[in-house]
Amino acid sequence: MNPIQELQLRIDEAFSAIRFPSAPADLYNPITYTLGHGGKRLRPLLVLASCQMFGGDIADAINPAIGIELFHNFTLLHDDIMDEAPLRRGKETVYKKWNSNVAILAGDTMFAVANKYMLRTRPHAISPVVELFNQTAIEVCEGQQYDMDYEKQQNVSIPDYIEMIRLKTAVLLAASLKTGAIIAGAETDDCNQVYDFGINIGLAFQLKDDLLDVYGDQVKFGKVSGGDIIAGKKTYLYLKALESAGSQTGYFRELYASHNLPSTEKVTKVKELFNQLNIEQLTRLLIDDYYQKALHDLSCISLPEEAMEELSDYAAGLMEREN
Amino acid sequence: MNPIQELQLRIDEAFSAIRFPSAPADLYNPITYTLGHGGKRLRPLLVLASCQMFGGDIADAINPAIGIELFHNFTLLHDDIMDEAPLRRGKETVYKKWNSNVAILAGDTMFAVANKYMLRTRPHAISPVVELFNQTAIEVCEGQQYDMDYEKQQNVSIPDYIEMIRLKTAVLLAASLKTGAIIAGAETDDCNQVYDFGINIGLAFQLKDDLLDVYGDQVKFGKVSGGDIIAGKKTYLYLKALESAGSQTGYFRELYASHNLPSTEKVTKVKELFNQLNIEQLTRLLIDDYYQKALHDLSCISLPEEAMEELSDYAAGLMEREN
Repeated sequence: MNPIQELQLRIDEAFSAIRFPSAPADLYNPITYTLGHGGKRLRPLLVLASCQMFGGDIADAINPAIGIELFHNFTLLHDDIMDEAPLRRGKETVYKKWNSNVAILAGDTMFAVANKYMLRTRPHAISPVVELFNQTAIEVCEGQQYDMDYEKQQNVSIPDYIEMIRLKTAVLLAASLKTGAIIAGAETDDCNQVYDFGINIGLAFQLKDDLLDVYGDQVKFGKVSGGDIIAGKKTYLYLKALESAGSQTGYFRELYASHNLPSTEKVTKVKELFNQLNIEQLTRLLIDDYYQKALHDLSCISLPEEAMEELSDYAAGLMEREN
Repeated sequence: MNPIQELQLRIDEAFSAIRFPSAPADLYNPITYTLGHGGKRLRPLLVLASCQMFGGDIADAINPAIGIELFHNFTLLHDDIMDEAPLRRGKETVYKKWNSNVAILAGDTMFAVANKYMLRTRPHAISPVVELFNQTAIEVCEGQQYDMDYEKQQNVSIPDYIEMIRLKTAVLLAASLKTGAIIAGAETDDCNQVYDFGINIGLAFQLKDDLLDVYGDQVKFGKVSGGDIIAGKKTYLYLKALESAGSQTGYFRELYASHNLPSTEKVTKVKELFNQLNIEQLTRLLIDDYYQKALHDLSCISLPEEAMEELSDYAAGLMEREN
């Protein structure tokens, strides 16, 4: 078992040990249900890996790691109501299986429970960790709001889109890494540097998600290939294509927004235009750009290169995934 | 200006000074809107009054006081979605004026902002105050769930109802008082005693709300007289009447649940039965019972009686209100 797998095991064990009260049933059953579907648990892994890298004891970081994952799952519960998403990780969403009210209240409860977990760490870390956690929560809400705004807005610039995914996705990955660093007692500069690394990896990660939705080499678990195209979601690929669509702009806008075409036909036609405009290549270039920035951030941290090998290998793994 | 009014002024000033970002507008405008409607701001007052009573500096308590009020307003935002309430404090609710998604996300943001305010206090108090705050938040969510459950459930016992209002209303008043005490550095026993005082005052306060909805001597601002009866809400008065309705039980259940009768006719008929069964008197007895318990809790606190005069006078005022 490699060190990352050991951390993953530790996280899985911690999650298996969580028990919620049995009553009121409609409050706690949805929480147990949603946590039971697992997920990648990337964020708690980043907390522990960062804590370990900076020489901290992961026993001090495991509860905040759980707190951040609980928060992430709470946002999914509420996002699924707002996005009217029927499925999550291949299972019915809480709002579909129960109803919106249940998903609202179970989510609120998870956020409060998450905050309690954030407190269970070394005394010096409590205040900065809880401050960072809630500031990040605010930013994630801002990101979700911009995401909803942009779905209704005809013109979204690429910088606006990048800022939206920074808020919606990257800040929580960055905060996870910084939380581990704070708990380990890392220097302020290093805490900020590992945060910046998280932002850049987070942006690359989300852009890769956009890319794989169209160019992934297999259907992802619980997701339809080309799902973003079918839904007419404004992704980086769409916005980049729009930028250089020239005389085809009107046709492309209409095609992308259409809900009348059969799904496969719509996906095929949009992909044709993406291919014409070299969108896959351009997206891969931007992803690599953020990845290189992330590696640079890592190189500025005052630790020997070997100490950071695991985190950089893990990041490389995230970048290489093709599904 | 008496000392309570001075504290109220301090709280109003602190709220007036809060500025939220202007973007994203659909996230922050609803927050500014909802906070602009004021309300009694009872909870922050309890934080400051308790802090002062235990010899603390209210400058250390003002931010957590704001945090608790932000939390309270967040719960109202989400409750109004769940209860489909069109009005709050005489104004359109956020979910009606905008939509549910806006109310969900603005609420989530308020909860995160509230947690940040809870941190801004003396170092010794941060961990216990934030722990108490989020534990209380969990209990408030449980209370809301039981409230919704009981609306659908035919048989609700009086102890179940009391436990529901303890969770939904009393724990936050109690936590407000305990927060002030913790910040002031009060002894653990005193912190717990002032918490118990808050629970008993909170129960009396909510039962008084139930009573005044039917027997208040004027129409409350933003509320219709007999509103609970019209809505068929299971209040203490209803459950107590059911207990002794005897042969009229079936008729009374049907009448109370009915949505076909004109409102005034329904209110008149229900009140007739309440009067027959002496419900006003019985409710006043229970309110006084909790009030006496609250006074006993206060008498157990290790402070001279004079120090507690303001809080006990304020509680007496809450008990005497007839609208």
